[in-house]
Amino acid sequence: MHSFKELSAKFEQQFNHRQFPAQPANLYDASQYILGIGGKRIRPVLAMMGNELFDTLHDDSLLVGTAIELFHNFTLIHDDIMDKAPLRRGMPTVHTKYNDATAIMAGDVMLIRCYDFLNKVQPHIKTKIINVFNKAASEVCEGQQYDMDMEVMKPEDVQYNDYVNMIGLKTSVLLAAALQMGAIIGGGSEGNQQHLYNFGKNVGIAFQMQDDYLDAFGDPDKHGKQAGGDILINKKTFLLLKALDTCNPGQKEELHHLMDTNPADKVAQVLRIFKECKIDVWSEEEKESYKQKAIKSLEEIAVVSARKKPLLELADFLLTRQH
Amino acid sequence: MHSFKELSAKFEQQFNHRQFPAQPANLYDASQYILGIGGKRIRPVLAMMGNELFDTLHDDSLLVGTAIELFHNFTLIHDDIMDKAPLRRGMPTVHTKYNDATAIMAGDVMLIRCYDFLNKVQPHIKTKIINVFNKAASEVCEGQQYDMDMEVMKPEDVQYNDYVNMIGLKTSVLLAAALQMGAIIGGGSEGNQQHLYNFGKNVGIAFQMQDDYLDAFGDPDKHGKQAGGDILINKKTFLLLKALDTCNPGQKEELHHLMDTNPADKVAQVLRIFKECKIDVWSEEEKESYKQKAIKSLEEIAVVSARKKPLLELADFLLTRQH
Repeated sequence: MHSFKELSAKFEQQFNHRQFPAQPANLYDASQYILGIGGKRIRPVLAMMGNELFDTLHDDSLLVGTAIELFHNFTLIHDDIMDKAPLRRGMPTVHTKYNDATAIMAGDVMLIRCYDFLNKVQPHIKTKIINVFNKAASEVCEGQQYDMDMEVMKPEDVQYNDYVNMIGLKTSVLLAAALQMGAIIGGGSEGNQQHLYNFGKNVGIAFQMQDDYLDAFGDPDKHGKQAGGDILINKKTFLLLKALDTCNPGQKEELHHLMDTNPADKVAQVLRIFKECKIDVWSEEEKESYKQKAIKSLEEIAVVSARKKPLLELADFLLTRQH
Repeated sequence: MHSFKELSAKFEQQFNHRQFPAQPANLYDASQYILGIGGKRIRPVLAMMGNELFDTLHDDSLLVGTAIELFHNFTLIHDDIMDKAPLRRGMPTVHTKYNDATAIMAGDVMLIRCYDFLNKVQPHIKTKIINVFNKAASEVCEGQQYDMDMEVMKPEDVQYNDYVNMIGLKTSVLLAAALQMGAIIGGGSEGNQQHLYNFGKNVGIAFQMQDDYLDAFGDPDKHGKQAGGDILINKKTFLLLKALDTCNPGQKEELHHLMDTNPADKVAQVLRIFKECKIDVWSEEEKESYKQKAIKSLEEIAVVSARKKPLLELADFLLTRQH
């Protein structure tokens, strides 16, 4: 068994070279470009950890990890086009550096490439691996569509549960599927695969909740983003939706007024209302509740506790950051 | 063995229903929409014919045919975004009816869906099938990129051979791969698979040459398009590139002048020069030469001639149309 750092280094060693042919350069340079601007490679490590939970590390985990990392980057390229985002990790996005047409296709060939790697896993698990991958892949697209659907809705028309569902699809199912594919490679039973999947899904949702919390209440000096960036652009977050759900009519009216008029002290005013409604406390509790669900799923997996340590440590690491 | 018509009906019977879940409707309705606006389903029929060349029809051909038809439609959705095309088969394109973001994702989920079907073929041929599919899929994207690269080049800077290569990738390799995958399902040897692939690739190139010829010299009343539509927009075609390659300096200069100035009688003038340079005769000969290459590949396949009849008839049908 290996630590996150060891697995991450192992993955980088085989991933960190050009993944695409030389020609046509205008296409494949664009695909390769996004792989070179960083990323924590957390999804491949999850696949490897899922494998090591049940058995020694198999090369299939690197293949599956590569496919997932390529898929993740494919979604970043296409999402950035849809969101018209100029920057990603401080660098120009693919469609900004090249153009929309090239970015669409740079994503397409990256998605196709995923299946080159999935096609190399051992035959007796290939069908199952591709099924799990494809279910997650479709769900990520569905999550992105629900997100776009919600973007044009008024915040008070978005149901909190629909929002949790969207976040789960958009950000968590790929983490969960990475773990499950690792479990398949390691020979975990169907039941244990499902527990591990649930662990990943709930960690993912808790992580997103923490992200929303830190954007509002975190220390901007630590997370390096604009304080209350989400509040400034009226972004639908766990906090805002819960506030609109639970605050009293006067507070709700005040929130709407702040979102409509964008006064200079908007962030401070919204944070004050959030605190009056105890959204900060609720948010911490809600995150903790998803974390506990995750840990419970992990506990239910029928392997000795020692094997679960890297996953537990990773969950702790991801869900206690202050920035 | 079955005729094109019979195979096409057989394919439609299982393909002609909703291929996607109901929700999110904004995503999957867009994917389904393009499948409903027609298409000759020629690629699935090629897969089925490739199968029947060697053995009785297997359900895997329908699975592979579905994957190829979905892939083909995925390329149409994304190409139409890149080309900013308003219409497809007389109907609004997906990005026109919905929007760019939805069209990007409607294509993405369609591409993912291809592999659901490929993942259902018999295990002993699955790896090979996905390899052939993925090689063609990547090449189609490469062809589209070369096409975009050539679009911003001056016609005289485009090498004729590079253009043939681009057309081969963009339009022929998927036809060729459809046949090859059928041959794999039918149990054809590697050598016979290759011959069948070459047959498909050369038929595809000959077909595109005919398309260019008809646009210039065909009867507009028959093919229903604007006479000389390619000439009007200075489109790089086999005819124009060959003319710029072989006409004398005076004719070349005249061609450039016509392309730069767009006079009212541009089509007639360009056609006159084409005829003076015997581009019409050359074009027919060149198409015939690719057709003969295709037929030679078909002849080399080690099965009795009677089994080749549907493919020979299809090539004849595709390559003798006047519109």
